[in-house]
Amino acid sequence: MALIGKLVICGVGLIGGSFALALREKGEVAHVVGMGRKRATLERAQALGIIDEICTDWAVALDAADYVLLATPVGQTDAIMAAMAPHLQTQTIVSDVGSTKGDVIAAAYRRLDAHLARVVPAHPIAGAENSGAEAASAALFQGRSTVLTPLPENAPEAIEKVRAAWRAAGAAVVSMVPQDHDRVFAAVSHLPHLLAFGLVHDLAGRANAELLFSHAASGFRDFTRIAGSHPEMWRDICLANRQALLGELDQYLGELALIRSLLLSGNGERLEKLFEEARQARIAWGEKHAASARIEIRRPEEA
Amino acid sequence: MALIGKLVICGVGLIGGSFALALREKGEVAHVVGMGRKRATLERAQALGIIDEICTDWAVALDAADYVLLATPVGQTDAIMAAMAPHLQTQTIVSDVGSTKGDVIAAAYRRLDAHLARVVPAHPIAGAENSGAEAASAALFQGRSTVLTPLPENAPEAIEKVRAAWRAAGAAVVSMVPQDHDRVFAAVSHLPHLLAFGLVHDLAGRANAELLFSHAASGFRDFTRIAGSHPEMWRDICLANRQALLGELDQYLGELALIRSLLLSGNGERLEKLFEEARQARIAWGEKHAASARIEIRRPEEA
Repeated sequence: MALIGKLVICGVGLIGGSFALALREKGEVAHVVGMGRKRATLERAQALGIIDEICTDWAVALDAADYVLLATPVGQTDAIMAAMAPHLQTQTIVSDVGSTKGDVIAAAYRRLDAHLARVVPAHPIAGAENSGAEAASAALFQGRSTVLTPLPENAPEAIEKVRAAWRAAGAAVVSMVPQDHDRVFAAVSHLPHLLAFGLVHDLAGRANAELLFSHAASGFRDFTRIAGSHPEMWRDICLANRQALLGELDQYLGELALIRSLLLSGNGERLEKLFEEARQARIAWGEKHAASARIEIRRPEEA
Repeated sequence: MALIGKLVICGVGLIGGSFALALREKGEVAHVVGMGRKRATLERAQALGIIDEICTDWAVALDAADYVLLATPVGQTDAIMAAMAPHLQTQTIVSDVGSTKGDVIAAAYRRLDAHLARVVPAHPIAGAENSGAEAASAALFQGRSTVLTPLPENAPEAIEKVRAAWRAAGAAVVSMVPQDHDRVFAAVSHLPHLLAFGLVHDLAGRANAELLFSHAASGFRDFTRIAGSHPEMWRDICLANRQALLGELDQYLGELALIRSLLLSGNGERLEKLFEEARQARIAWGEKHAASARIEIRRPEEA
């Protein structure tokens, strides 16, 4: 018997679509309903065999639903939960794919307070160069990890179901405290995105931007790849994780102040030591983790 | 007849070695002499067929030399030019591969002032993940560009010879004013390296570094790839191009101050606009330039 009978995907883009495809391939879902703001997106998803049914009404979508996956930019979570709340049935598990967890959890406490036993927040660490349902793939989560940040109110069997679904989709599942999650990803993901967006924005605004860009090479290419990410998604992440991100930015500004003082004073010895420490750490990380880190740019469909 | 009779490579690593191999393959060099601090490096280079002869004495190396290529970290340029000066013969062209040009040119004016007609500074925009003579390849410069920053004192035929050599090696040759070169590369190469070194150094120094690194994914991987670059080489570049680099760092700190204020005030509209402008510029750059930008991490051998 399939793990999930009726699955509702809200936001059928790369992530939501890949989740559906992965579970379908394993025979772990019987029926997939797509919800979203854009009819055309849902029709493409249906034509691609990602969803069985298009739905625009939460009352219909949630009737006899086993599992709802919210896969929209996180800024939409509160409104979506508010719209779902009147129609949620007791058995339905609600999970998400947001890159931030504090805001999603706050919305759950505001909007789904009667349903907290079955709201299990999650964050799959995966993505691809391309976005949208067309880029969805049953293999997207293979060898990647998904972070769960369960609530104290969660029923153990609800957590187990979400864990089993992500495992079936191919991911390794780890659990974290939400605050830790948001701090960790502020440091290793959200800050780098800000820094890359900032550098490209800075250079693009110069009078000699064309000259600068014409000499940029592969170092620039890789450093700024994430500046090609989806603006609405990253606006939402930055606002949702503002506090942790400001903390990380300020810590980084302290690092840059140190580097600036070493440059100003021409302290080659300490500059070289700093570079050497960074290089050793980067090489050690690469040997341990990079092999499994595939391309990750996420542009979820708008719901 | 070969373009260069006797070629002297000082620092037979990835860049110097690839230059020799590329010219050999085209039959454009008759005899290659390797100079350097480390005997073992030179012996490897000879065993690999990159150089014909190992030399440790400038008097011998420069006798009847047609072309000297300095391919060491730029911090060594002044001392090398001082050592070369007494033995330089009139016909010998001196060029380099430094990522900074102002410092190389200043050293030339200090040390080779009687020879300025034939000192033609150059900067090939190329590199590879691996360093050293073993990584050298005749194809390294294919489809890449080399920037020349000629001196007013240069003889036209000396510039032409350097241009012809890089073209024979497969590179497109462009010319720039040295100050423009150093400012442009401070912005599109040196600053990104500093920022990547800084981020990894910052995270590596945290009490929870292991946790942070364990959740870093492909966005982090690409953003920090250049933090694996060679510390001595980058120390030299930062010190040599200190003024332009400080200017770029300060401008970037202004950009981060703007982003910080948008975060603090929760200005989602302007954050999204900034991200969108960066994304458009990055995509436009990628379509125009990225296809030809191959991997570029440079770790030249020490001379």
